[in-house]
Amino acid sequence: DRCGYPEVVYGEGKTPEQIIEVFRAQQAAGQACLATRISAPHAEAVLAAFPHAVHHPVARTIRLTSPSSRLAVTPLRDGLEGHKTPAVLVVTAGSSDRPAAEEALETLAWAGAECALITDVGVAGPQRLLKQVDRLSEARVVIVVAGMEGALPSVVGGWLSCPVIAVPTSVGYGTSFGGLTALLGMLNSCAANVAVVNIDAGFKAGYLAALMLRSASPGPQES
Amino acid sequence: DRCGYPEVVYGEGKTPEQIIEVFRAQQAAGQACLATRISAPHAEAVLAAFPHAVHHPVARTIRLTSPSSRLAVTPLRDGLEGHKTPAVLVVTAGSSDRPAAEEALETLAWAGAECALITDVGVAGPQRLLKQVDRLSEARVVIVVAGMEGALPSVVGGWLSCPVIAVPTSVGYGTSFGGLTALLGMLNSCAANVAVVNIDAGFKAGYLAALMLRSASPGPQES
Amino acid sequence: DRCGYPEVVYGEGKTPEQIIEVFRAQQAAGQACLATRISAPHAEAVLAAFPHAVHHPVARTIRLTSPSSRLAVTPLRDGLEGHKTPAVLVVTAGSSDRPAAEEALETLAWAGAECALITDVGVAGPQRLLKQVDRLSEARVVIVVAGMEGALPSVVGGWLSCPVIAVPTSVGYGTSFGGLTALLGMLNSCAANVAVVNIDAGFKAGYLAALMLRSASPGPQES
Amino acid sequence: DRCGYPEVVYGEGKTPEQIIEVFRAQQAAGQACLATRISAPHAEAVLAAFPHAVHHPVARTIRLTSPSSRLAVTPLRDGLEGHKTPAVLVVTAGSSDRPAAEEALETLAWAGAECALITDVGVAGPQRLLKQVDRLSEARVVIVVAGMEGALPSVVGGWLSCPVIAVPTSVGYGTSFGGLTALLGMLNSCAANVAVVNIDAGFKAGYLAALMLRSASPGPQES
Amino acid sequence: DRCGYPEVVYGEGKTPEQIIEVFRAQQAAGQACLATRISAPHAEAVLAAFPHAVHHPVARTIRLTSPSSRLAVTPLRDGLEGHKTPAVLVVTAGSSDRPAAEEALETLAWAGAECALITDVGVAGPQRLLKQVDRLSEARVVIVVAGMEGALPSVVGGWLSCPVIAVPTSVGYGTSFGGLTALLGMLNSCAANVAVVNIDAGFKAGYLAALMLRSASPGPQES
Amino acid sequence: DRCGYPEVVYGEGKTPEQIIEVFRAQQAAGQACLATRISAPHAEAVLAAFPHAVHHPVARTIRLTSPSSRLAVTPLRDGLEGHKTPAVLVVTAGSSDRPAAEEALETLAWAGAECALITDVGVAGPQRLLKQVDRLSEARVVIVVAGMEGALPSVVGGWLSCPVIAVPTSVGYGTSFGGLTALLGMLNSCAANVAVVNIDAGFKAGYLAALMLRSASPGPQES
Amino acid sequence: DRCGYPEVVYGEGKTPEQIIEVFRAQQAAGQACLATRISAPHAEAVLAAFPHAVHHPVARTIRLTSPSSRLAVTPLRDGLEGHKTPAVLVVTAGSSDRPAAEEALETLAWAGAECALITDVGVAGPQRLLKQVDRLSEARVVIVVAGMEGALPSVVGGWLSCPVIAVPTSVGYGTSFGGLTALLGMLNSCAANVAVVNIDAGFKAGYLAALMLRSASPGPQES
Amino acid sequence: DRCGYPEVVYGEGKTPEQIIEVFRAQQAAGQACLATRISAPHAEAVLAAFPHAVHHPVARTIRLTSPSSRLAVTPLRDGLEGHKTPAVLVVTAGSSDRPAAEEALETLAWAGAECALITDVGVAGPQRLLKQVDRLSEARVVIVVAGMEGALPSVVGGWLSCPVIAVPTSVGYGTSFGGLTALLGMLNSCAANVAVVNIDAGFKAGYLAALMLRSASPGPQES
Ligand SMILES: Nc1ncnc2c1ncn2[C@@H]1O[C@H](COP(=O)(O)O)[C@@H](O)[C@H]1O
Ligand SMILES: Nc1ncnc2c1ncn2[C@@H]1O[C@H](COP(=O)(O)O)[C@@H](O)[C@H]1O
Ligand SMILES: Nc1ncnc2c1ncn2[C@@H]1O[C@H](COP(=O)(O)O)[C@@H](O)[C@H]1O
Ligand SMILES: Nc1ncnc2c1ncn2[C@@H]1O[C@H](COP(=O)(O)O)[C@@H](O)[C@H]1O
Ligand SMILES: [Mg+2]
Ligand SMILES: [Mg+2]
Ligand SMILES: [Mg+2]
Ligand SMILES: [Mg+2]
Ligand SMILES: [Mg+2]
Ligand SMILES: [Mg+2]
Ligand SMILES: [Mg+2]
Ligand SMILES: [Mg+2]
Repeated sequence: DRCGYPEVVYGEGKTPEQIIEVFRAQQAAGQACLATRISAPHAEAVLAAFPHAVHHPVARTIRLTSPSSRLAVTPLRDGLEGHKTPAVLVVTAGSSDRPAAEEALETLAWAGAECALITDVGVAGPQRLLKQVDRLSEARVVIVVAGMEGALPSVVGGWLSCPVIAVPTSVGYGTSFGGLTALLGMLNSCAANVAVVNIDAGFKAGYLAALMLRSASPGPQES
Repeated sequence: DRCGYPEVVYGEGKTPEQIIEVFRAQQAAGQACLATRISAPHAEAVLAAFPHAVHHPVARTIRLTSPSSRLAVTPLRDGLEGHKTPAVLVVTAGSSDRPAAEEALETLAWAGAECALITDVGVAGPQRLLKQVDRLSEARVVIVVAGMEGALPSVVGGWLSCPVIAVPTSVGYGTSFGGLTALLGMLNSCAANVAVVNIDAGFKAGYLAALMLRSASPGPQES
Repeated sequence: DRCGYPEVVYGEGKTPEQIIEVFRAQQAAGQACLATRISAPHAEAVLAAFPHAVHHPVARTIRLTSPSSRLAVTPLRDGLEGHKTPAVLVVTAGSSDRPAAEEALETLAWAGAECALITDVGVAGPQRLLKQVDRLSEARVVIVVAGMEGALPSVVGGWLSCPVIAVPTSVGYGTSFGGLTALLGMLNSCAANVAVVNIDAGFKAGYLAALMLRSASPGPQES
Repeated sequence: DRCGYPEVVYGEGKTPEQIIEVFRAQQAAGQACLATRISAPHAEAVLAAFPHAVHHPVARTIRLTSPSSRLAVTPLRDGLEGHKTPAVLVVTAGSSDRPAAEEALETLAWAGAECALITDVGVAGPQRLLKQVDRLSEARVVIVVAGMEGALPSVVGGWLSCPVIAVPTSVGYGTSFGGLTALLGMLNSCAANVAVVNIDAGFKAGYLAALMLRSASPGPQES
Repeated sequence: DRCGYPEVVYGEGKTPEQIIEVFRAQQAAGQACLATRISAPHAEAVLAAFPHAVHHPVARTIRLTSPSSRLAVTPLRDGLEGHKTPAVLVVTAGSSDRPAAEEALETLAWAGAECALITDVGVAGPQRLLKQVDRLSEARVVIVVAGMEGALPSVVGGWLSCPVIAVPTSVGYGTSFGGLTALLGMLNSCAANVAVVNIDAGFKAGYLAALMLRSASPGPQES
Repeated sequence: DRCGYPEVVYGEGKTPEQIIEVFRAQQAAGQACLATRISAPHAEAVLAAFPHAVHHPVARTIRLTSPSSRLAVTPLRDGLEGHKTPAVLVVTAGSSDRPAAEEALETLAWAGAECALITDVGVAGPQRLLKQVDRLSEARVVIVVAGMEGALPSVVGGWLSCPVIAVPTSVGYGTSFGGLTALLGMLNSCAANVAVVNIDAGFKAGYLAALMLRSASPGPQES
Repeated sequence: DRCGYPEVVYGEGKTPEQIIEVFRAQQAAGQACLATRISAPHAEAVLAAFPHAVHHPVARTIRLTSPSSRLAVTPLRDGLEGHKTPAVLVVTAGSSDRPAAEEALETLAWAGAECALITDVGVAGPQRLLKQVDRLSEARVVIVVAGMEGALPSVVGGWLSCPVIAVPTSVGYGTSFGGLTALLGMLNSCAANVAVVNIDAGFKAGYLAALMLRSASPGPQES
Repeated sequence: DRCGYPEVVYGEGKTPEQIIEVFRAQQAAGQACLATRISAPHAEAVLAAFPHAVHHPVARTIRLTSPSSRLAVTPLRDGLEGHKTPAVLVVTAGSSDRPAAEEALETLAWAGAECALITDVGVAGPQRLLKQVDRLSEARVVIVVAGMEGALPSVVGGWLSCPVIAVPTSVGYGTSFGGLTALLGMLNSCAANVAVVNIDAGFKAGYLAALMLRSASPGPQES
């Protein structure tokens, strides 16, 4: 396994058969499975083989709880009212940033990390963010997903005292350059608590957040 | 003259003699004078010829009131307490953004536009900006000067209902790319009231803000 | 609302249902509605719900006058002969620059700003522009829309004494780089009265021009 | 304060007097102080005012333990033989990557995080890294500092099961583009546990690593 | 002929008829034929004319042994167990890098060079590479095919004492920029034995490896 | 000689001795000599050896009439009043564009082509250009030298019916990118009669203009 | 008219009706017509209206001799054996460079300039070029069309003593960047007789070559 | 040692003491020593410690024969007349490309590979290259060093049937972009026998050429 977690399948350019084969091996080894970047038709084929797998069409992921079930978690997507703040909050600037945010949530769920989604707190409507600051400051890690100018992680980072993982998205037009402008903005954040991952890399953000929650177990990894 | 204002000297690569010659001609024509991008030694030489000229070493400008004095204005730089909000506010993210902000203020002063400076309200310290929102919303035009990720114009634009002119600065390191990252962020602002000028172009921001204040006089310009 | 204007829907990636929902809420609140980046089939679905809405297929916008009708304006598109010059003129270099220009006009109409279109005055046919200089100098704000080398805002800016908002378009081939070359040319304009917005951002140009016309109402905004 | 830590001074373009003033205020408030990007002559002037401050010439930092001393930590720089592995390990590819690594170590020391330096384990000498894998896998967070092709974080990330913070450096020539190539390599790491910060941003890496170690205290921050 | 080998057809934008015509002429001259970048339907048309030609759908190549058959070689693709290490080994980081690797193998086969494929030894699973080091060190030239961060050639180069030809692939997303990031990483490799070819240029890598194996025959070439 | 003209020395990185040696050989062969990119101290050393050579400090050139004198020409630099329009006109946008313009003039003089300089007709002052249109339309080739947005060649090209050679200069700041923005503007000119050379390549423009004037002599060149 | 030639239609994004309308007006004024970037279906529609027009599917042009027929010219495309060398030669590096070359030829034919095509003399087969040097040196202007590394104009320019117009094409893969690499190579040519136009701008090259042949008629242009 | 050769010191940013220390260790181990990127004053200090070392000021290298002397070789720099062609030829386009060429030669000499230098065969003077083709075709590996448009490796590669290693140099101005244009040209060479290294990486080219000459000794390397 990689990094203490079962290996994750990068679905781009793989056939459903290849994915099913990896999942079979992982299930046999008692591991939870995750595949990302899965198209709708491929997902259907995989679900036919694993009817208990969870396919998320916006995240474009399929995950499969390990038989021993230790990691069963469901992300909170419909508001946090009446809920205790989970360890990880995933925040989006606009509704188009949803796919990368969902990929992060599904990765967190697969990794067994409690998590929730807060949407549409982009900087052009500043009151919306202000209303969430108290909630956000209760999380242990916050993932911020934003396209266009990518300013949101800086603003969120300025309010919080926990690590912020910034995910630039390919949302925008003209000089948004497929997410490059958002990425550059995040790398140059004047908030010091902002770490950055690749454009649209919701998976990496979720994976890193889950790692940050565990205290790393000593000893070299086996694979 | 162009655009209704006397022509402005771009000092880069000009000798003091060339600048003095233009100023002489403009004074003779009863115009106010402005020169930008003036080095300290060049400024000294110009001041020797025009002892009443105002040299601002951080802005790197020299300006000279027209004999008829209609345009005499002094920017407010030491806080607005006890002052009525002037038409134009110039806001900086950090103290290194000062030179471009000062170039804007000196241009506004030369153009006869009341203006003031508010510094250090960068997004990493969000309470500082919140304290200024009421004041900022009283201005008719706001100029926002920021480097690094250039997020401040988006955030300010989100709070205000007047035009915001964004000036990216060459402040930062690594992937700030001499102001390019800030510029791209500003161009992709999700706040719709943000217009952008070139990197470090405080002069252009000040000039445009002054134009926005006047109701443009009809009829073609002479030159 | 933001910036004194009702919020505008960015249609990219939204379903007709989402757009209709926002429009319903805005109508209920007595606001005028605007949606940009709407595909033809989506427009049809929205028009079915709001038969009085105006869909402009080249601008790819839908707008809906507020019930109180204060803002009803129709852009002049067929020449200005016999008309008083409106406050805002939108100028294109070539016929391919039309979509961004129309987006600006529709935004101006939605915002209640009188406006007109002047087409095809690109720099390769200089007499065409010369014939328009008198007319252009009567406007209070001029929006210039150009692709390829993006030289037109500089040339127009040189003739006028009002603010010029430059909109680079993704028109061209080879090294036009989807509008980047036009954008860079506009940012480096040696005319000081030129402000710039993102590539193809006709909406932003129209929005800013409308803001420049009003004297901004004091007091912080609610949202 | 910002993010739960006392505010850090970015020394670029500040006078020694400005730095001393901030330090005075922070000391008065009982906080530990840190300034980064301090030139040698400026450091001398600050040390004259604060003789107990620690100046690190390679890191180009000055730090000053808070009067209450809670945070006193000394980075291990001379090998780990005979030492327990500290929470954070800072690893460099080559000897030219030292400055960014030292900036990270000094930031960690200021933040009270136990840390050590391991140098020169670049990918061109693979046995050197292999010898360190056991040690590295005992850390809770690993910071990897590398220039040129920036491959080291991928390789280290592949061996470990804790978060890896990658710091690209401006070391190299030709197409290293001042660290851009290393940055891009790190963002595209096929190891999922790699987060990235700006080029030469040792400070950010140290700050984030320290944040990851603490369990974030709930409640909004004051500033 | 070019470079001592019969000329190779670059199939992009050529009709099957054009390809068949060149192959006819080369066969008549007793030469082996190779065409690259051939789509499936074009391949079918060419195979109809040359039933003995070998079409490789992943490599997108067609090759045709010369009548004199001197160059008949079959690449080893199913593991090297029980085989002597051939002169050239082609190594991929991940399974998506296959097409460029297959293009290299087919070129080597056409050129008469013994070769084999080793897949999926990417840096995120370091033990897989370690298991191959002994085998790799028996080759005379190693071709390394990798996308994303392109770190594999550096790591392989660090273990070996023969020339390594690095082929960046357009595999990845976000800032992988269609292979540019991998290319830059390879050019900046701190391993000195790494030469680089264009993105996805498996053909060039195979061609160069074959040239390196021969002792170059003296005398100028004819064409 | 190449292209019918004696070979030209590119002075960058050459010692005065190297330049003198080439000039000696060319003089012996009865050729006119030209060296470009010559620093002031190097020029002094060359002039000591060739007292009749013409050094132009702004152009940074040295030229030396051939003994047979066929090519003796002096560029007109002080206005064309009272002069017949020469075959080539060199036009600058601003005074900082002078060095590249002078390099073109000196190259034309060396090549025996009648030429003149017209300065400061940049697009921000459109009347200045209008006054020159009649004069410009009498030339056989026009060279336009401009930095910043590089719009002038488009505008001039729109007025004229002869070939226009555009020389971008490294004049500007921020996003002028050392002349790249001007270059891109010129390549994308919507005037079809505009050819482009490298940034600051006054020499190439002058050389090409001279070639365009001659009817090319048939037969292959010797060298 | 523009530049002394009747205006040329840029077909991209125009309807057949728009093109027909312009052609009608130009025919009425006794001018020859040219339209570029015409798709096959659009061409069909235009040809239905003008049965005598010449559509070239590879060039993607339509041209129509003026009624007075002064400009009737047919490019030589099948080799020059037995022909006198025409004034303009158009040379391609490879067969994929054909479209831009054909656009140049059709433009030359429309402008009444005698011209011929020489294909496939790319630098990888140097004897092919050597065989053409005598022929090429008889032309008055040579247009060189090349993609990939764009080396051919430098090599051709080195052999000739006439102006060379270089047309970069978007032929290539990987780092050819859609013709940018070829363009940059051509701009940096160490042959001084090379002028450059935009990527794939065969039209501009043909237009400029035709202008170079005429002695420009004095007097300002009308339009 | 790595790759069968003793490790090479990259001098950039190292003190003379550090270099001397490495050389001492290598001498003690009976290895030959090489340091690159050594400034003149540093070289002097190293030579004081190793009087028998060879410092090449243009290459900026120091090398030191191993005590066992097996590798003593002197590059031929003054023409090949009367000499047998050595295994490796290093060719430059212009005289400014000398430093990278000399770095390659010194690396070859250190590695014990017979080599010679041929200068100034740039593409603008094609006869110079033609005169060298016979000689070049006798080499086993050819290194081509060129700046500006970087066309020379393509042209040389077209004539030869051995591997060509292309070294782009930072020679040029304007859009040469410090060697990037030359690099891109070389990567896109239509000659298939061209491998590329980093800008100014003469060391890598020499190292690779030497590796290509030896038949690689089997067995994993020790370090
Ligand atoms: N700092 C500046 N940035 C951009 N443009 C400037 C600046 N200062 C002056 N200018 C413009 O440059 C023109 C004068 O240029 P020049 O004739 O070279 O002095 C004026 O029309 C100004 O609008
Ligand atoms: N064409 C457009 N370009 C840029 N911003 C737009 C455009 N249309 C709408 N917007 C902005 O996008 C915001 C709405 O985004 P959304 O909530 O995703 O509909 C509004 O505040 C508008 O200011
Ligand atoms: N300023 C310049 N820009 C570009 N090429 C030049 C320049 N000056 C001279 N050259 C060219 O450089 C070549 C001479 O280079 P070199 O042998 O290094 O002196 C000549 O063939 C000239 O065409
Ligand atoms: N000029 C150079 N360019 C690239 N790599 C070099 C150069 N000189 C030495 N090296 C490599 O740098 C490594 C040594 O780096 P260092 O340990 O920092 O001296 C060696 O493995 C060499 O292969
Ligand atoms: Mg955003
Ligand atoms: Mg900022
Ligand atoms: Mg245009
Ligand atoms: Mg490194
Ligand atoms: Mg890879
Ligand atoms: Mg200019
Ligand atoms: Mg080519
Ligand atoms: Mg060269």
